[in-house]
Amino acid sequence: MSPPLAVALGDPAGIGPEVVAKAWAQRAAARLAPFFAVGSPEAIAAVWDGPVAIASDPDHAAALFDEALPVIRVDGPAEILPGHPTIEGARNAFEALELAVGLTRSGAACALVTGPVSKAQLYAVGFTHPGQTEFVAERCGLAPEMVAMMLAGPTLRTVPVTTHVALKDVPSLLTTELIVAKGRTTIRALRRLFGIERPRLAVAGLNPHAGENGALGREEIDIVAPAIERLREEEAELIGPLAPDAMFHRRMRETYDAALCLYHDQALVPLKTLHFDEGVNITLGLPIVRTSPDHGTAFDIAGQDRAEPSATIAAMRMAAECARRVAA
Amino acid sequence: MSPPLAVALGDPAGIGPEVVAKAWAQRAAARLAPFFAVGSPEAIAAVWDGPVAIASDPDHAAALFDEALPVIRVDGPAEILPGHPTIEGARNAFEALELAVGLTRSGAACALVTGPVSKAQLYAVGFTHPGQTEFVAERCGLAPEMVAMMLAGPTLRTVPVTTHVALKDVPSLLTTELIVAKGRTTIRALRRLFGIERPRLAVAGLNPHAGENGALGREEIDIVAPAIERLREEEAELIGPLAPDAMFHRRMRETYDAALCLYHDQALVPLKTLHFDEGVNITLGLPIVRTSPDHGTAFDIAGQDRAEPSATIAAMRMAAECARRVAA
Repeated sequence: MSPPLAVALGDPAGIGPEVVAKAWAQRAAARLAPFFAVGSPEAIAAVWDGPVAIASDPDHAAALFDEALPVIRVDGPAEILPGHPTIEGARNAFEALELAVGLTRSGAACALVTGPVSKAQLYAVGFTHPGQTEFVAERCGLAPEMVAMMLAGPTLRTVPVTTHVALKDVPSLLTTELIVAKGRTTIRALRRLFGIERPRLAVAGLNPHAGENGALGREEIDIVAPAIERLREEEAELIGPLAPDAMFHRRMRETYDAALCLYHDQALVPLKTLHFDEGVNITLGLPIVRTSPDHGTAFDIAGQDRAEPSATIAAMRMAAECARRVAA
Repeated sequence: MSPPLAVALGDPAGIGPEVVAKAWAQRAAARLAPFFAVGSPEAIAAVWDGPVAIASDPDHAAALFDEALPVIRVDGPAEILPGHPTIEGARNAFEALELAVGLTRSGAACALVTGPVSKAQLYAVGFTHPGQTEFVAERCGLAPEMVAMMLAGPTLRTVPVTTHVALKDVPSLLTTELIVAKGRTTIRALRRLFGIERPRLAVAGLNPHAGENGALGREEIDIVAPAIERLREEEAELIGPLAPDAMFHRRMRETYDAALCLYHDQALVPLKTLHFDEGVNITLGLPIVRTSPDHGTAFDIAGQDRAEPSATIAAMRMAAECARRVAA
């Protein structure tokens, strides 16, 4: 029996506690592996009246899982108002994340799922990383450029080479080395986490029609094609640089296991257009398995019983599946 | 009884003749309004053995339509090898386009559908416009910036503000004036061509998460939001600047009639991801109705009976519907 999943609740005033509780309520139908929440039990009680049990450690949590949502307690604000983030709440989210990472690093949890946080709030309590991904990477002893962010839905996986930067800065940030690094991380993760022996990686061009042989931009020729050549040294199948608008329809998606994209929206637009409610963010290149639902804190609907747990359920299922493959 | 549609065959060695012939063969099931081809009958005969009838003019063509594919002849190469474009073929495509535009401008045809051409080949025979859209605009007395290109599928319509330029040039080409001009053309065309009294226009941001209040780029604040303010003077509903990755999923698509996008792939990636085989390109802002299937000459599969006529059928249907609305 493998250890349970650790699920950091995210900001206690966001929809994290609600979607985790709803996921637990659907544990049988969704065939979820045992998991436990890490965070404030009060945040759950504020939005859900199902059974909650305080667990002393992951083993205890696994034993409780059938009867109640197990929570490893991280003290937070005495009162939590859903939809109203506070400094104390952000501190609680930060501490819960730290504990959940530690439990996963130690092997007491088989994988980590992180709930949505407010970056602006986290920065106010001394969080110095751009996001949870970089924080987790650092705690695992890795520099941010050594990991990659994959967005995964039922019929498409995409990995952006550059992420949260202004579009005008993308062309100058793209280098052959960066594309090779992210491509290599992706290929190896497809093998290790997804069990694909010989991964097929599609690489997008940057420009309309992939530049039309240089007429509409030279990045495909100068930067992307050389990266693809170098990635051919991996045990993988490489295709590209592809015209971005012709690579995400159904027939094309069947020809590759992941698409390496050059900027945030090139990866996120097709993924969310197709799989808005089921998108999972999975960090590639870590020694541990870490996923998260691909949505934010949604403070505007928190506490109204309107939050959909489907992305969290998908994140939990993917985390458990990947953890099984890594352990095998 | 309205006049028939004029359909320029495009490059005689491309898939244009084949998909037009296949569309005619499906005229009953697809409930197509009468149309006639403009171009080389030999190009059709090279790839199709159905009935072809030479028409002397559009009225004659309409009378022939039930029994045979009517063609208004434009002399081309004596021999046509599908998949092997030639200078003579390009000249034929150019002349057919010119004639089809003239017949539509005169009112003898109710609308224009243009088949795929090879731009490289056209340039070699003295075609000086970037593409067919700009040529048609000029023949209608309009500068290129006065028209807009809409890509339309069953559940999404997008209009790119900038089109065939390298991605790195997009930020410097974007101005409030250009967004207003394209937005205004789109709003008016939604009313005139699509019969939407009070059009709902969604405007995309340029940067990830629409810039996050300036943290990831300032174009939304400095350029896009002021354009949206000015577009509110139109009788229309404006939303935006929207996070590009969160605006194309099903629930969001239901909240607007068209999405104004800032660059080629922002418009084309979601459209082709969802509607690869049914995408129609329609030129907005013209005095005539002009559509085309959103695919190229596909020389690699020409003459192999593998070309899908669905986009051409969709282009014909949309042209006929829009022409009916304009005439009403």
